[in-house]
Amino acid sequence: MTHKVLLLPGDGIGPEIAAQAKRLLQSCKEAGLDIDVEEGLVGGSAYDVHGEPLPAETLDKAKAARAILLGAVGGPKWDKLEDLAKRPEKGLLGLRKNLGLFGNLRPAMLYPQLASASSLKPELVAGLDIMIVRELTGGIYFGQPRGIEERDGERVGFNTYVYSESEIERIGRVAFEMAQKRNKKLCSVDKANVLEVTILWREVMERLAPEYPDVELSHMYVDNAAMQLVRAPKQFDVVVTGNMFGDILSDAAAMLTGSIGMLPSASLNESGQGMYEPCHGSAPDIAGQNVANPLAMMLSVAMMLRYSLGENAMAERIEAAVGKVLDDGLRTADIASEGMQTIGTDAMGDAVLAA
Amino acid sequence: MTHKVLLLPGDGIGPEIAAQAKRLLQSCKEAGLDIDVEEGLVGGSAYDVHGEPLPAETLDKAKAARAILLGAVGGPKWDKLEDLAKRPEKGLLGLRKNLGLFGNLRPAMLYPQLASASSLKPELVAGLDIMIVRELTGGIYFGQPRGIEERDGERVGFNTYVYSESEIERIGRVAFEMAQKRNKKLCSVDKANVLEVTILWREVMERLAPEYPDVELSHMYVDNAAMQLVRAPKQFDVVVTGNMFGDILSDAAAMLTGSIGMLPSASLNESGQGMYEPCHGSAPDIAGQNVANPLAMMLSVAMMLRYSLGENAMAERIEAAVGKVLDDGLRTADIASEGMQTIGTDAMGDAVLAA
Ligand SMILES: CC(C)[C@H](C(=O)O)[C@@H](O)C(=O)O
Ligand SMILES: CC(C)[C@H](C(=O)O)[C@@H](O)C(=O)O
Repeated sequence: MTHKVLLLPGDGIGPEIAAQAKRLLQSCKEAGLDIDVEEGLVGGSAYDVHGEPLPAETLDKAKAARAILLGAVGGPKWDKLEDLAKRPEKGLLGLRKNLGLFGNLRPAMLYPQLASASSLKPELVAGLDIMIVRELTGGIYFGQPRGIEERDGERVGFNTYVYSESEIERIGRVAFEMAQKRNKKLCSVDKANVLEVTILWREVMERLAPEYPDVELSHMYVDNAAMQLVRAPKQFDVVVTGNMFGDILSDAAAMLTGSIGMLPSASLNESGQGMYEPCHGSAPDIAGQNVANPLAMMLSVAMMLRYSLGENAMAERIEAAVGKVLDDGLRTADIASEGMQTIGTDAMGDAVLAA
Repeated sequence: MTHKVLLLPGDGIGPEIAAQAKRLLQSCKEAGLDIDVEEGLVGGSAYDVHGEPLPAETLDKAKAARAILLGAVGGPKWDKLEDLAKRPEKGLLGLRKNLGLFGNLRPAMLYPQLASASSLKPELVAGLDIMIVRELTGGIYFGQPRGIEERDGERVGFNTYVYSESEIERIGRVAFEMAQKRNKKLCSVDKANVLEVTILWREVMERLAPEYPDVELSHMYVDNAAMQLVRAPKQFDVVVTGNMFGDILSDAAAMLTGSIGMLPSASLNESGQGMYEPCHGSAPDIAGQNVANPLAMMLSVAMMLRYSLGENAMAERIEAAVGKVLDDGLRTADIASEGMQTIGTDAMGDAVLAA
């Protein structure tokens, strides 16, 4: 069966790193992988052409694909757009919502070769391997009512943080299952001492726990979780949380490694259809200079092969190739260090393909 | 004029550290400070006696006081209380709301003597001095509607993140004025690419900026702010943000110093009435063992003298005494390090008083 893959380069450094992913997919094809790769526009680059960040054509292609590879969206060019619905970010949010990609897997792991890149002391991060499971299609990102309106003679802005039991349950199951495959520790992050919505969150996690007796469930308030990530990140195995807290904590966790340019992510729906993207953003400041790190994007290809296409062997080959390139002392500027060779985006792509 | 001060020891280690603050206040009195110190119950300890975390008597005393010194509230003993309104945290939130203490100042500064306590590499945190200005009486903490209810056959939890222009403006002014007194850099943190309420937030900050031409205003998304705090915290001077983001970021920032047991905080209303408390929590696991660090609580006394009582000279004497104690190599367990002398809560109180 031919796997349909949609490549969405997006904005900023997106096109450069997507070009490396495309070469990688081509080489997988030559190695026997049966895929059909299409391309599409999303984000600011789609807005520039079609006047909207998620054109119908792109959404149709996305629905038809088994997996989507996304570079990154956003940039200062579109930050001043008055209408939030036209901003690049809405392209990304629209894909997540329309495809029901509720399960966001964000690994924060430290490559031993890059230990010195972390801003934390080496002993605190050596061997770090956290999986953050973030709910991605609910919570305050999508809650209604929302808006800015006049009340009592002044403007008021408002958003709604909302979760139903079934939404919490399905992300809870993803997290418990993930913990079962890993070190069997699950920490659920909430603010149940203040927010009712997270009281329900905690209750549902508690209700699920007996079904996964091999997993040790704990709860942590979000402020404490932010502290513990800085203080002693290795205490975590799998973390599950809502959309907004997950946004904040997964970025902090990724940054602990010092090499966010290395971290892929997956966003899955119930049928295993998925969108794969680097954890880093569109980095408009370095776009077009051939200095961006393509490894998170290439590792996103590996994640896609594993989670949506069931091609574990090929995923492992890619991950091994990335390991080898690091062992060989090759680095892009973001992870450069003394004694290593700093190379550009294309050259890093070449090196992975060769490996 | 006699300054009225209300001491609320609270729960966990609260009473132990409050005892040291009380001794300190007594010694200020002997040195000529005209104060009248009352005590009251709040949090779990109030619930145990009166069945509610903020008894009317405590609230009345608080309203009558110029300043309140609070130890800490909360603990596992009360975490299972079904009724959120009865939890210790509601005592704290009730004080904030009823006294209109909207301006929360949370310094994250590194004591040079404690540089090695940080989990970050020394060069990244040496000289760290950030002031987080957190809005404290609005946002999702207090927004209506909120609750858990049945919808379409299942339960749904919901909270409302809401700010009016005037609420944003008054905390913005606090932050701009703070920046004027410091290094003239203000970073406003929001999630304006997703949340309407923070689009309004950003707009109001922009509108205020021309009134403070000496302050350089920048904006950062909350996920990026969490990353930047880990990556390069010294880029920040003053940070202003809403209640929820402020809760998360101020704890992360405090933890960067590695010595959250050293950090005081202030919560002020429009008339300069204030509540002062350590940034750390009630630490029930070490309560009653005479090992808690009383310094954040004693430094909260100094902050109170400065911000609510206008007694700068005495505030400086306390801060200098704390500096001397650290120079002398005295440490509580949380900040213990090789070659230093580890002492208990009482002994640390003695040392500060002596200094
Ligand atoms: C671009 C933005 C809308 C997005 C989010 O907040 O979810 C990004 O920060 C992410 O984490 O994928
Ligand atoms: C105890 C809790 C309600 C409180 C808060 O979330 O504001 C605390 O975390 C704080 O930051 O002062």
